[in-house]
Amino acid sequence: MSGGFSTRTAKPSDRDLIFALIRELAAYERLLDEVDATANDIERDLFGPSPRVFCDIAEAGGKPAGFALWFYNYSTFRGRHGIYLEDLFVRPEFRGQGIGKALLVNLAKRAVAENCSRVEWSVLDWNEPSIAFYKSLGAKPMDEWTIFRLSDAALRNLAARE
Amino acid sequence: MSGGFSTRTAKPSDRDLIFALIRELAAYERLLDEVDATANDIERDLFGPSPRVFCDIAEAGGKPAGFALWFYNYSTFRGRHGIYLEDLFVRPEFRGQGIGKALLVNLAKRAVAENCSRVEWSVLDWNEPSIAFYKSLGAKPMDEWTIFRLSDAALRNLAARE
Repeated sequence: MSGGFSTRTAKPSDRDLIFALIRELAAYERLLDEVDATANDIERDLFGPSPRVFCDIAEAGGKPAGFALWFYNYSTFRGRHGIYLEDLFVRPEFRGQGIGKALLVNLAKRAVAENCSRVEWSVLDWNEPSIAFYKSLGAKPMDEWTIFRLSDAALRNLAARE
Repeated sequence: MSGGFSTRTAKPSDRDLIFALIRELAAYERLLDEVDATANDIERDLFGPSPRVFCDIAEAGGKPAGFALWFYNYSTFRGRHGIYLEDLFVRPEFRGQGIGKALLVNLAKRAVAENCSRVEWSVLDWNEPSIAFYKSLGAKPMDEWTIFRLSDAALRNLAARE
């Protein structure tokens, strides 16, 4: 990677760092009250046997600067896996250096190398700086689709039906 | 399951059925020209070693009536996996019997049994019958989020950057 930074695959000793970054991202998105994960949850799911979720760390000058956390999704129309970027975050003091772009380039390289059809992620509609950045990279907003979510009591209620 | 139908986990011999259902769904969504998957792709990804994508089949009177195709996603805020329903489809001649709901109930039961935090899926904004159905089950539209997609030439271009 160019600049004074690099990206690398996360390792088990990054557990507390990843958990801290998740909370910093949630605070930025004004969603910190929705975080009830623990550092143990992150360790189990990212570094247990046969993980289904993965993480890359960006470092600048040897210091942790940001992260990308992702999993494989699937397109039945393409008959190929894709990569879904669940979290992308660069700490405020490291922004403007291209670190977010480097994390995305890194994921795009992986997608192409693994014959994935696409990289996707979701953006809050008020986050205009991020939307402009993503569009500048060639990403297209899937404006005609809405995500529906069933969780908590509604999920338990549906699961309890015959 | 109630009614004259049942759901079951797909097996390798369902390969051609699943492929046919994917094409029927694409035609319904007016997206058939976006399908370039083959039946071999579906077989490899659903029934190869360590699959990352899964399928349930609904049958009515012994005939294949519909399917749900899904994978595991992840919430860093919850520190738990979720289920993402990529495709849900009931053949027109089998609609109105509760088969779509049965496929969703089946997934909700799995989510609860596996301590998943949620079940999510995406809906085309013009598909008002589906939207009304999903809301009746307690699902919430995530209106404030937009999915961004990087694919094809834009993906390759980004992957080619330093």
